[in-house]
Amino acid sequence: MALTNPVDSMPMGPWKITVYDQEYFQGRRMEFTACCQNINDFCMETVRSLKVECGAWVGYEHSSFCGQQFVLEKGDYPRWEAWSGSNAYRIERLMSFRPVYSACHKDSRMMVYERELFMGRQWELCDDYPSLQAMGWFCNEVGSMQVQSGAWVCYQYPGYRGHQYIMECDCHGGEYKHYREFGSHAQTFQIQSIRRIQH
Amino acid sequence: MALTNPVDSMPMGPWKITVYDQEYFQGRRMEFTACCQNINDFCMETVRSLKVECGAWVGYEHSSFCGQQFVLEKGDYPRWEAWSGSNAYRIERLMSFRPVYSACHKDSRMMVYERELFMGRQWELCDDYPSLQAMGWFCNEVGSMQVQSGAWVCYQYPGYRGHQYIMECDCHGGEYKHYREFGSHAQTFQIQSIRRIQH
Repeated sequence: MALTNPVDSMPMGPWKITVYDQEYFQGRRMEFTACCQNINDFCMETVRSLKVECGAWVGYEHSSFCGQQFVLEKGDYPRWEAWSGSNAYRIERLMSFRPVYSACHKDSRMMVYERELFMGRQWELCDDYPSLQAMGWFCNEVGSMQVQSGAWVCYQYPGYRGHQYIMECDCHGGEYKHYREFGSHAQTFQIQSIRRIQH
Repeated sequence: MALTNPVDSMPMGPWKITVYDQEYFQGRRMEFTACCQNINDFCMETVRSLKVECGAWVGYEHSSFCGQQFVLEKGDYPRWEAWSGSNAYRIERLMSFRPVYSACHKDSRMMVYERELFMGRQWELCDDYPSLQAMGWFCNEVGSMQVQSGAWVCYQYPGYRGHQYIMECDCHGGEYKHYREFGSHAQTFQIQSIRRIQH
């Protein structure tokens, strides 16, 4: 059967995610190939486990793509702890999700700045950085970011831990001028690891 | 002042970690440049925050390098949640730690096998894999592993989340034949992301 959208017009697609309303892939089950703004609209209270079958996705704590963000790449997520990266703030809800439109992984590029509004020292990223400080950045904070290409995920702590902030060239025009634009739950400039999101 | 060990004989070194017995870099403070088998020997009850200043380290829940493992790369870890990756099993202890002797990052190589004892399908890794399944592996498990070069960290879930297992060519002869050898806390073959440890 032909795809509804020819692959030509969707070079990074297609996307597919299967969500369940119970842990360990039990209970009510739904498949999605595009964004879901509120899982309650599909008679689920919340998502308690999921499988990403195709593409990269971002999940949100609240409906309408609000609250904590979680990057979701191909694989199995049997419980909330599999997608939440922050231990301090226990998130057992996942209410909305959408595909991530990442560029070809090898072409991902972004600029990080010392201070807000793209000021101060700057550094161009084009790789994965489990420790920004080990790889050349001078402190544990990033003041602002500009995504030229691709989709990225930034983390509070080294080694891809703590709060996750998904940054895309197609959102906000790729511009993240202040930590308040990193995500609705960001409360500091602290960013210590960054990586590209692969499709 | 000259280093005690000339850099020539320690191409990946030197290492340095500063640990504190209170959160947010408060309280009693100690610097280490080599392994610490039991922090109690230094009049600290446990480590509650730390800064990796040089090199990559692995921290352990218990003394004598036992219990859950945490890869520690350059940067600031203000609270236990910064190093623990698993939310299910809340770890607020870090009792021992040691340097990781990673090869030159670009030369890291390891082989993963479908089944224990290096049997079944196999795949050579030489990069970072936020989702093994997205990048070619056929399931959410790895039966055994052989590290040819460098140091690696394997994770239970995609996106570098969940339990961490540090794998080194210099430990066990680089051979990890069964999940019981992945780490003292491993209880399944589930491994969904793997990356190199950078110095």
